[in-house]
Amino acid sequence: MSRLRRVTPVPSDIDIVKAHSCLPIGEIASKIGLTASDLEYYGPFMAKLNTKIPASLEPKERGKYVVVCGITPTPLGEGKSTTTIGLAQAMGAWLNRKCIACIRQPSQGPTFGIKGGAAGGGYSQVIPMESFNLHFTGDIHAISAAHNLIAAAIDARGLHEATQSDKALFNRLVPKKPGKPRVFSPIQKLRLKKLGIDVNIDPEKLTDEQKRSFARLNINMETINWNRVVDLNDRFLRKVKIGLSPSEQGFSRETQYDITVASELMAILSLANNLKEARERIGNVVIGNAKDEKQTPITCEDLGVAGAATVLVKDALKPTLIQTLEGTPVLVHCGPFANIAHGSSSVIADKIALKLVGPDGFVVTEAGFGADIGLEKFVDIKCRSSGLLPDCVVIVATVRALKTHGNGPPITPGATVPAEYLQENMELLEKGTVNLETHIRNIRRFNLPVVVAINKFSTDTLKELDFVREKAIAAGASDAQIANHWELGGEGALDLAKSLIKVCDQSESNSRFLYDLNLTIKEKIEIIAKQIYGAGSIKYSEKAEEKIKLYEQSGYSSMPICIAKTQLSLSHDPTLKGAPSGFEFPIIDVRISVGAGFIFPMAGEILTMPGLPTRPAFYDIDINTETGEIHGLF
Amino acid sequence: MSRLRRVTPVPSDIDIVKAHSCLPIGEIASKIGLTASDLEYYGPFMAKLNTKIPASLEPKERGKYVVVCGITPTPLGEGKSTTTIGLAQAMGAWLNRKCIACIRQPSQGPTFGIKGGAAGGGYSQVIPMESFNLHFTGDIHAISAAHNLIAAAIDARGLHEATQSDKALFNRLVPKKPGKPRVFSPIQKLRLKKLGIDVNIDPEKLTDEQKRSFARLNINMETINWNRVVDLNDRFLRKVKIGLSPSEQGFSRETQYDITVASELMAILSLANNLKEARERIGNVVIGNAKDEKQTPITCEDLGVAGAATVLVKDALKPTLIQTLEGTPVLVHCGPFANIAHGSSSVIADKIALKLVGPDGFVVTEAGFGADIGLEKFVDIKCRSSGLLPDCVVIVATVRALKTHGNGPPITPGATVPAEYLQENMELLEKGTVNLETHIRNIRRFNLPVVVAINKFSTDTLKELDFVREKAIAAGASDAQIANHWELGGEGALDLAKSLIKVCDQSESNSRFLYDLNLTIKEKIEIIAKQIYGAGSIKYSEKAEEKIKLYEQSGYSSMPICIAKTQLSLSHDPTLKGAPSGFEFPIIDVRISVGAGFIFPMAGEILTMPGLPTRPAFYDIDINTETGEIHGLF
Repeated sequence: MSRLRRVTPVPSDIDIVKAHSCLPIGEIASKIGLTASDLEYYGPFMAKLNTKIPASLEPKERGKYVVVCGITPTPLGEGKSTTTIGLAQAMGAWLNRKCIACIRQPSQGPTFGIKGGAAGGGYSQVIPMESFNLHFTGDIHAISAAHNLIAAAIDARGLHEATQSDKALFNRLVPKKPGKPRVFSPIQKLRLKKLGIDVNIDPEKLTDEQKRSFARLNINMETINWNRVVDLNDRFLRKVKIGLSPSEQGFSRETQYDITVASELMAILSLANNLKEARERIGNVVIGNAKDEKQTPITCEDLGVAGAATVLVKDALKPTLIQTLEGTPVLVHCGPFANIAHGSSSVIADKIALKLVGPDGFVVTEAGFGADIGLEKFVDIKCRSSGLLPDCVVIVATVRALKTHGNGPPITPGATVPAEYLQENMELLEKGTVNLETHIRNIRRFNLPVVVAINKFSTDTLKELDFVREKAIAAGASDAQIANHWELGGEGALDLAKSLIKVCDQSESNSRFLYDLNLTIKEKIEIIAKQIYGAGSIKYSEKAEEKIKLYEQSGYSSMPICIAKTQLSLSHDPTLKGAPSGFEFPIIDVRISVGAGFIFPMAGEILTMPGLPTRPAFYDIDINTETGEIHGLF
Repeated sequence: MSRLRRVTPVPSDIDIVKAHSCLPIGEIASKIGLTASDLEYYGPFMAKLNTKIPASLEPKERGKYVVVCGITPTPLGEGKSTTTIGLAQAMGAWLNRKCIACIRQPSQGPTFGIKGGAAGGGYSQVIPMESFNLHFTGDIHAISAAHNLIAAAIDARGLHEATQSDKALFNRLVPKKPGKPRVFSPIQKLRLKKLGIDVNIDPEKLTDEQKRSFARLNINMETINWNRVVDLNDRFLRKVKIGLSPSEQGFSRETQYDITVASELMAILSLANNLKEARERIGNVVIGNAKDEKQTPITCEDLGVAGAATVLVKDALKPTLIQTLEGTPVLVHCGPFANIAHGSSSVIADKIALKLVGPDGFVVTEAGFGADIGLEKFVDIKCRSSGLLPDCVVIVATVRALKTHGNGPPITPGATVPAEYLQENMELLEKGTVNLETHIRNIRRFNLPVVVAINKFSTDTLKELDFVREKAIAAGASDAQIANHWELGGEGALDLAKSLIKVCDQSESNSRFLYDLNLTIKEKIEIIAKQIYGAGSIKYSEKAEEKIKLYEQSGYSSMPICIAKTQLSLSHDPTLKGAPSGFEFPIIDVRISVGAGFIFPMAGEILTMPGLPTRPAFYDIDINTETGEIHGLF
């Protein structure tokens, strides 16, 4: 049944991948009822889905919807992606269930910085792994192009408005071509509409005041919150000054580059239910405010660039089908940040997958970071957008991470793992298990059933593993299973999968969101911070207070909240392990993604542009120029 | 035979395209003997060729090699691409010859700036036109990624060297991992080799001096000539200051962005004969010089990033197969600038195409800008690299452009075309035809046969067209034919195609390069400027003199020359029409692309980053959110 060829000890990720050839993607597609007309091939092993996105999905016609999240992780990660893949392999290749894993596309940037792929690990991986970690089917490049087009449009417009009279500006925006009258383009009519001007008016008939208000966005360049992006670790772009060439006549300004996955467009694509909604959301993106007293929000629609940006990302709205090592279908789509955005793959992929697997099948997806961030946002942001709530939550825990929560010595990437983690240490484990218990109780606040996946390391003892299992069930988990999919592939996640099937079959859909959207912004922040993170109080900076006031005035207060904070603690402070409580939770700033549709309070500075270390991973990467084979990529 | 469905009058480009569906790309491929295993599909109508690149090509086994160039153009262009496509349609769909057109991939940036595609026009176009003008198969995005990775590597390295001791730097570059000795990666061994250190040495055994020289590239950051790139018109990036975040500790510097097609990597990919050569050339790229007395060139290989950059562009080394409106195969590959680079599509595509069409077939490709720039560089740079000389040159002329060379009134994009160009005017034409005659004589300097394609406009009179024809033959053209492929598709280029076949059949391969590589840099510049452009003398700036001296000292003097100058005149001055002579030709700077393998003297400032006008083309572009159809793209 399974096509895995396992050896012991488990070889490196890349060696495992090289020992497993991909099946033709058409063969994978046929497992879930797709035919050639549903596929747009990108080489033999990847295909974008051209298939219809279901407008709605009744429980009777859709598969079970499972989301994998994690406890508060160590910097090494605890195996959420590996568990997602392993679980899909167990369901698909071992239990003969229709199953699709829906995962995020990783950023290409870190591939060349600090080693580490995003394709799972051991015998639970997705393939073709190299394509997956490199350009893939071009979605992130498309998002970069669309994002930077908007940025170029902002600065060019600012310059043109600053250097031209009202009349010149209007006459150029609505040009008279030889032998033809001036006409507004359909996109320009959207701006007329916003300004309350008859869209069918002859451009020559506008009053001077109307021409002025049409042609001048009057952007306050100091309010621009649309940075430029690149899918790369380039620390010198964290803060830049642009427009220094004499041709820009002194209109220079400071701005920054973010890594592309931090783009609001990425969040939009992952939350949109269809092309129409994506187009609307892109039009709604607020790139800054006008200089007027009301600080009128300026949108992509005002700039006239929302249509072109949508054209650039139209194919990026289609998920890409690949496969696991055991031939299970995987849909890869979108990969927004989990701090300044919601951190999960797309609504569109989940909807297509839930339809394709049908009522007996399973869709396994993943929520970024720990459950405090990833799962809360998955439910309160993504599920609100899709209208689909999960049937069950899997939370991944490791004995190693739980020991760090018992205040074990720090774990640093690249350094030797301290002895406490390589031998039995019940004291640290007993102290640290509170982190898992807290996450389980948090998940239960959504009325969602939870199954714990104890991701086993070879050095874990049976006593340790059993302890975690008992505590998990006592804390409210429906079940807890030891999983060993890294070593065994799908077979290692069989107990977990069986448990999950049982829980899903018994699951009653009475799950709920954490907060009501109609509460005030501060009320919503308080619910998340106190109920999920364990905060005792919230402290807002002056800036945060002002922004909240502005957003409420602008009519944005009913949006969901997407708190940006560290993933290394339930709190805002990465050094606070276990389950801290009663702390003061600081909100230093509040920002907004109007297009994506959420407000993101900042509980600390978030780095949106990584850097290259002294010895980047690229020192190991080369190509065999005879065979074309890539060396040293993971 | 032809599948064209023509109507009169000729509709807009986009309307023609919409009226012609693409044939499945596998069907196009089979016309030239390709099978499924040669193709990597990108959707149903595009496929990258996975086929073997011939190492050498004897005349007996290859097709005829035809290059299309032009006279000195107006700002509207004279239809080189349209002629290339029309000619291929005539050969393939009307004369039943195996024929492949090899063309450049256009930059996506201008698509959203000033309207105008690069897919030909009228009934001579390539399809799918929208994909062709947008992301296509991702090659330009891949080049951006590789280029910017190198840029990020330069600045990160500069910072790390500036802030770390020799010892810390060495220890981080060659780290000791838990339980393992320090080892050099294969890429690091290339640097050891360059430094003359035994590559098998134990890293611990290096002397302090050796460690220092290994770890410190000692880049003089003021000499960095590797900019960042983006495939976009973003004028605010023409000059930027980077590294302004406190995390970069004050090591900021000024730099600029170029549009991606200006990347040296683009030139490398178009000149490389295979993957091995591409890898070597990327390693040879000089990004700047060391602070030492010898100003040692620092390469991508020194930075350790050449392998990773090659991995990123490995698929971009494969040409993409699409089709003309009449179902003729088209290979699209690379698109370097024609001023700071050589401006033609790839050696690899030409070689594959020449092999595929076989001895009775034709490969029609294009040289950028006017023949003074495009054809000279095609022969002296591209053909030197490939070892393949063309069998015949087609030069495209229009009555309109020749009249401008007779000092007709200026032609401005968007404005009404003056009456002189819409009615017979023998005076202007007689005066201006010298431009065509000069180009013909120039082409004859290479001992290449030349056929003139007189690209007919409906307002041209027979007397005008005949005049041009006679003058062309008198100036040394083998033949001259009136072509009307814009209006008629391949049928309109039938006379041209037949003439070309005849000339190619009679052609004896005694063509030659313009200059000997072993001449000095100045001697080579002089030959090009005097013989081709008509210069009387050359004037070098002080900077240019210094750079020539430096390049000669560094051993680069035997590279070919790629002069960067305006395309709007045979001279350096765009206002000098006709065939100016005796002028002083200014070289204001001399630069080098060591990886691409040419020296490029600058005869004026070249803008490598376009800007968006007040009313960019994106005001017309939108998507139908029900059907996914794109509106307003050309």
